[in-house]
Amino acid sequence: MFDDITSPTLLLDAAKCRANIQRMVEKCRRLNLRLRPHLKTAQSHVVARWFRELGIEAITVSSFQMADYFAEDGWQDITVAFPVNIREMERINRLAGKAKLGVVVENTESVRALQAQLRHPVSVWAKIDIGNGRTGLLPEDSERIDALLDEVGRASNLRFSGFLSHAGQSYQARGKAAITEVHRQSLASMQLLRERYRQRFPSLQVSVGDTPTASVVQAFPGVDEIRPGNFVFYDLMQWQIGSCTPSDIAVAMACPVVAKHPARNEIILHGGAIHFSKDLLTFPNGTPYYGLAANWKGGAWEVMQPKAYLRGLSQEHGMLKCESALLERTSIGSLLLVLPVHSCLTADAMKKYRTLEGEWIRMME
Amino acid sequence: MFDDITSPTLLLDAAKCRANIQRMVEKCRRLNLRLRPHLKTAQSHVVARWFRELGIEAITVSSFQMADYFAEDGWQDITVAFPVNIREMERINRLAGKAKLGVVVENTESVRALQAQLRHPVSVWAKIDIGNGRTGLLPEDSERIDALLDEVGRASNLRFSGFLSHAGQSYQARGKAAITEVHRQSLASMQLLRERYRQRFPSLQVSVGDTPTASVVQAFPGVDEIRPGNFVFYDLMQWQIGSCTPSDIAVAMACPVVAKHPARNEIILHGGAIHFSKDLLTFPNGTPYYGLAANWKGGAWEVMQPKAYLRGLSQEHGMLKCESALLERTSIGSLLLVLPVHSCLTADAMKKYRTLEGEWIRMME
Repeated sequence: MFDDITSPTLLLDAAKCRANIQRMVEKCRRLNLRLRPHLKTAQSHVVARWFRELGIEAITVSSFQMADYFAEDGWQDITVAFPVNIREMERINRLAGKAKLGVVVENTESVRALQAQLRHPVSVWAKIDIGNGRTGLLPEDSERIDALLDEVGRASNLRFSGFLSHAGQSYQARGKAAITEVHRQSLASMQLLRERYRQRFPSLQVSVGDTPTASVVQAFPGVDEIRPGNFVFYDLMQWQIGSCTPSDIAVAMACPVVAKHPARNEIILHGGAIHFSKDLLTFPNGTPYYGLAANWKGGAWEVMQPKAYLRGLSQEHGMLKCESALLERTSIGSLLLVLPVHSCLTADAMKKYRTLEGEWIRMME
Repeated sequence: MFDDITSPTLLLDAAKCRANIQRMVEKCRRLNLRLRPHLKTAQSHVVARWFRELGIEAITVSSFQMADYFAEDGWQDITVAFPVNIREMERINRLAGKAKLGVVVENTESVRALQAQLRHPVSVWAKIDIGNGRTGLLPEDSERIDALLDEVGRASNLRFSGFLSHAGQSYQARGKAAITEVHRQSLASMQLLRERYRQRFPSLQVSVGDTPTASVVQAFPGVDEIRPGNFVFYDLMQWQIGSCTPSDIAVAMACPVVAKHPARNEIILHGGAIHFSKDLLTFPNGTPYYGLAANWKGGAWEVMQPKAYLRGLSQEHGMLKCESALLERTSIGSLLLVLPVHSCLTADAMKKYRTLEGEWIRMME
């Protein structure tokens, strides 16, 4: 199957990926939500087209560079879900001239820079921090929110779309009940904002987005659109959170076996930090790991039992801790499959992936 | 100075980098050691030529792909310091046909694969684990070493060069005394091997290599060549270990400021995990950090005091913790410089860097 693979290769099970996409599209249709998928995970025209085939016309990206990349392939409705970087005004203007561009603001300085330099109309979302603690305005901080919206109101080229948030704290949740509770609290904050501003902005919208809640929760009251991204591939982190089953994970790294150490039950793989990235998870006993080995069985991968895990990564080496049985049946020069901890960073590190049919999919450069 | 920088950009102070290179070249000349620099950090033809200008003719790389990249620029003596990946035999043969190629072996399976499939002579180094615990044969394991060397002896295309090790445990050391102790123990192991095998292999060589010992230690008895790599750029990790001073660090990321949070003394930067990678260090109190802010002063960067540190990274965001004074004097849309924790991974993530003179240096793709 993988005979021609000679160096660390990120494999994509396109059927799983398309099933993940289809499930999310159908769910949003059922719940009457606009799905504006975040393409920072797949970062490829090919995967984006799989959304388009299912009728999706609006996307989310994490930088203006990424917006450019997708605009090149004909996407016309793009939100850059990152606090607007006003040093990129030239690119913003170029993009705004050819697509319906949404930007995210959270301070009056950025809004004034947009006012002064924008040559085309742009949609503006106010970034709200609903408990993630990364960035955005606090929902109870009416003073700053009002000041921001007043500033937006003074700019002829800015059209206020509504409030946008990312419940990144769902990454700390474990299990459906915990994810649902994060979701409930997040939406309560957004609901208060909607009520406070609905008279002033009758067409105000609410946009939320993170893979755990988008995957698990079935009700999104007061939400107009969701922007999950990671779900196209999923990964071990999402499995640990409870967003997916291991069989939903659509990417795996194929790694050549270069050494074996029976005395300490370790296999050395070609596959290191420059391939996986260094995001990690921990087992219940606190042991960190950077990936889990998988078996190839019946045309798909499944997590190996008993578990074999990457206990460490250096630049090109992966140190796989395993039981002696795996060590014995694994020969030098064979391939092992490893599921990544964080598929967004792994894909970004690899810059391309290969489908099970052998087709290479290139990502944004 | 950096007015035209609009998105996260890795800056290279070429003068510092060339000074780091020159210092190491001169030290090796003084100590009568062959310097075979590891090019996995810079990964660029341009930086490699700075070594060549100083008379260096032999290099180290971490993959056959990287060997290919440097062979293209005329390098003729290349050691791939990674346990040979026998799935890459086609590439190995192509390389061995045009350059003096050194490979690293630690098991008879790999040697037999080389025997069977090599079409050109190749130098072979036996990988010794001198306490790093990553990979290699234990120096006291005469049985496996003998079996390996016997197998090498049976192959007409393999020429045994000697023993190669990497004292990666020096990364756990802090300060010159601790680094020197790691070095002393490592060389003692290598010395025993040399004595045990010198009669059988009179021209046997010893190759060691890691930036901390290469930077700090002044005596390398029984060593023929060293293979440090990171020292071309250095980074916060090397500073913490004690390999360099902060003013030796030759790379810094220029990051646009996109948001400020005075209530929690945080600045949000465009500059995240896909730019820095996720390697981290910890302060003495256990707080992790992913980079330190630097001032631009007198044509160079220097670590900002009091320290401002990246407390977390998401895909594109960097969360910089700082004192209120920095927050007050930093405006939205300005640039901040951040020194990376691990320059090898940061450079690999960025794929290019820009000199202070504005020249872009591309890396291996």
